[in-house]
Amino acid sequence: MTAAIRERLVGAPLPQGLEPFGGVTARAPHLATRESKCGRKLCSSLEDAIRASGLKNGMTISFHHAFREGDKIINLVVDTLAAMGFRDLTLAPSSLLSCNAPLIEHIRSGVIRRIYTSGMRGKLAEAISNGLMEEPINVHSHGGRVHLIDRGELTLDVAFLAVATADDFGNANAVSGRSRCGSLGYAMVDAARAGKVILLAEQLVPFPNAPASIRQDQVDLVVKVDQIGDPSKISVGAARITSNPRELLIARLAADVMEHSGWFENGFSLQTGTGGSATATARFLEQRMLKKGIKAAFALGGITGSIVDLHKKGLIGRILDTQSFDAVAAQSLAENPEHWEISTNTYANLTSKGACSDRVDMVILSALEIDLDFNVNVITGSDGVMRGASGGHSDVAAGANLPIVVGPLIRSRIPTVVERCTTVVTPGETIGVLVTDHGIAVNPNRPEVAERLKAAGLPVTTIEDLYGRAVALTGKPQPIEFLDKVVGLIRYRDGSVIDVVRQVKG
Amino acid sequence: MTAAIRERLVGAPLPQGLEPFGGVTARAPHLATRESKCGRKLCSSLEDAIRASGLKNGMTISFHHAFREGDKIINLVVDTLAAMGFRDLTLAPSSLLSCNAPLIEHIRSGVIRRIYTSGMRGKLAEAISNGLMEEPINVHSHGGRVHLIDRGELTLDVAFLAVATADDFGNANAVSGRSRCGSLGYAMVDAARAGKVILLAEQLVPFPNAPASIRQDQVDLVVKVDQIGDPSKISVGAARITSNPRELLIARLAADVMEHSGWFENGFSLQTGTGGSATATARFLEQRMLKKGIKAAFALGGITGSIVDLHKKGLIGRILDTQSFDAVAAQSLAENPEHWEISTNTYANLTSKGACSDRVDMVILSALEIDLDFNVNVITGSDGVMRGASGGHSDVAAGANLPIVVGPLIRSRIPTVVERCTTVVTPGETIGVLVTDHGIAVNPNRPEVAERLKAAGLPVTTIEDLYGRAVALTGKPQPIEFLDKVVGLIRYRDGSVIDVVRQVKG
Repeated sequence: MTAAIRERLVGAPLPQGLEPFGGVTARAPHLATRESKCGRKLCSSLEDAIRASGLKNGMTISFHHAFREGDKIINLVVDTLAAMGFRDLTLAPSSLLSCNAPLIEHIRSGVIRRIYTSGMRGKLAEAISNGLMEEPINVHSHGGRVHLIDRGELTLDVAFLAVATADDFGNANAVSGRSRCGSLGYAMVDAARAGKVILLAEQLVPFPNAPASIRQDQVDLVVKVDQIGDPSKISVGAARITSNPRELLIARLAADVMEHSGWFENGFSLQTGTGGSATATARFLEQRMLKKGIKAAFALGGITGSIVDLHKKGLIGRILDTQSFDAVAAQSLAENPEHWEISTNTYANLTSKGACSDRVDMVILSALEIDLDFNVNVITGSDGVMRGASGGHSDVAAGANLPIVVGPLIRSRIPTVVERCTTVVTPGETIGVLVTDHGIAVNPNRPEVAERLKAAGLPVTTIEDLYGRAVALTGKPQPIEFLDKVVGLIRYRDGSVIDVVRQVKG
Repeated sequence: MTAAIRERLVGAPLPQGLEPFGGVTARAPHLATRESKCGRKLCSSLEDAIRASGLKNGMTISFHHAFREGDKIINLVVDTLAAMGFRDLTLAPSSLLSCNAPLIEHIRSGVIRRIYTSGMRGKLAEAISNGLMEEPINVHSHGGRVHLIDRGELTLDVAFLAVATADDFGNANAVSGRSRCGSLGYAMVDAARAGKVILLAEQLVPFPNAPASIRQDQVDLVVKVDQIGDPSKISVGAARITSNPRELLIARLAADVMEHSGWFENGFSLQTGTGGSATATARFLEQRMLKKGIKAAFALGGITGSIVDLHKKGLIGRILDTQSFDAVAAQSLAENPEHWEISTNTYANLTSKGACSDRVDMVILSALEIDLDFNVNVITGSDGVMRGASGGHSDVAAGANLPIVVGPLIRSRIPTVVERCTTVVTPGETIGVLVTDHGIAVNPNRPEVAERLKAAGLPVTTIEDLYGRAVALTGKPQPIEFLDKVVGLIRYRDGSVIDVVRQVKG
């Protein structure tokens, strides 16, 4: 019948570049049979999915890290790729954690040659800080990762995305099923940008699955796996609830700063990060909001149970969630129509058409070190070894109206306030206030904020004073000894290199 | 402070292509002030938005047609562009209707030179059929439009997207506010693909607006307009509720065909289109589903109140809605968590990674003409003048397991079953069954379906027999006289040309 249709076109010269009808399946071979139409994505094993993806040596593979220390997928996939003989891969997860120590072996053997990540911890971070890799790793922020992809530096060839439930066409989420990490904000980025998208689904459900955090028109292949992650380990590490009196003191002081900063008005917005003091701050805000009779329009993040609690009490209007930091947040995302999943592009990419980070009034941020220029280090410890993550730190610091860094002046005899950060991740010009257990320092570029806090009777001093107190208590730290070799490039959110990490002298 | 940070990089040669940190606002000038951060998208007038978009003569502008005959935006924008002196534009709305007759003047004056559309009606269609334009228009299917964009033939330079509510960052929908058209399925395509996206919002609401059918990271500019459309006119024209006895007869027969087709099992899926008989068919399905004790997994479309009614009665699990065809559907989308908005890419683009059209079991389709090869014409009338739309017709026909065309054998003394369609839009090989008020014809390529329908005692005959009856009743139609000039290219969903429309001899 195609021929009969084509006959109709005789005598009608077509514009250049256009072709006559060639049959219904000419450019859609998957429509040839009912099986190929609907069953073309589901693979019977991870190996089959990898083969079908066309992955080749030298390509880039990506993952999300929403399960944090509970992730079961990154190691599984790289183990499988190693067993299949792949080599020279670039590993580009949204982040890495202590649980990824088994990757050391795959780096040694040449399966993995290059790494882009927001951070790393534990044995893997120690090994890389000690010169494990030939090429330096690239440490990016969450928003910066999207920027690196969109500007073409980081090409995601195959994304391996863990999802709690999926149908055989690829509609998937992590708010239903057994192993729920909540928001798939990182995975949404990769699903929209990777050449091939493989879903690793813990449970297959009938078509059409909902909500479709990842949509069928973004997915190439689907494979069932036993377990994608352990949700109970999401809040291990950075995202913890504190009962430490000093952290609670800092949290209360941070809430005081927020209250008197000038931004604490009805309809304000906030992000509270994930350090112990940061998450506790949310709780201290409650009484202040009630006292003043105000509500927040929205909370952004990195969402914890503390934020969900404020929302349930009617004190926060909407929750914009790019990563759920505990089971309470994940459950709220599943149930609560005012709790929304947003991609990391919407969250914090400076070259997206609109980043939520630019809309937030106040953000609580943590620090491993902060220096006299207010530059912040969240990646290397005082021994020069990597043990943290860039995360959304520099993104939200650049966007928010008042970024507030919180931290103890001294941790285990190691000062937080230093003359010069071991590594700069977030430039000091974007930090507004530092809150420590020894007082508050306001960036000299925000004199109006300093005035307000002083007027409210808060213990405002200078960062030089805080540095002096730290040195008085601990002595001046010995400089760390580094070798010349660069083991890490710290990429600012716009893709530029803001600092390098050198190999520690072991 | 930037200089101090850059000093840290001394002695660390950067990999090729990477630049040192240049300051927080170096690549993000919008972060320089609080005003430019948050207020950069909102324009005070449509003219300002157009100027800010960078639109130039010769470029392509796009629109959605979700308000159908009630649309207030396409004419407004083209009027404004004409007044501003723009020329040689390509107009690429998802479709055009009778309400767009004022465009005739702008075509005459050279403001619009080329058109891509799913269809056209009324005076505009008549004028174009009579040779108004120098270049033929391109008539595409809904899925085919996305394909033409994605393969690079149709570049959307500036999209003008009508939304009922938006915040000043561009989070927008059409399920809240005054003028609700429901699903923004077409607009979602343009928002994701256009170079610049301008929202024309009837109401501005506080950030963050939800649901974000169109997201802030897709939007460049926002402008408030008085009224985007009249929702009461959405169901004027193609999408109507019938009380015509003949249409009801056909609808009942179509429901019989569905019941006995072999696809009427628990968990089946359906699409019912928008003709009078098509929408009525949904209602006749109810008793058959109750009798058999089955439920449909999902309905796709083009959603009408009839489908919503079945869903509310528990007979359809989920509704996948790319266009809401009446106020009941729009309201359901606003309220009902199992009623989802899907983009036209997810709905029906054959080169998306997954089109819902490939997952649907049975679809009811309309026809202006169907010929002895089962080819269908939904674009030209028996006088050769364009008066319809390609719509999702050929998309769902290609994807569905059983496409069923319904229509009266004769309309106002004009036969529907013809020897040879005036224009082929949907190739006959994809059509399964024809249901008329004079009996049922099954495509010879589906003998198993014919057997089942005969076994159920349904009035199955051949299409040749139906054609013979039509000729006996009306006489053989006189051939239409056309001039040589091609006024329309009928693009199949894969981008190929399946037919041409020539200028009618006036």
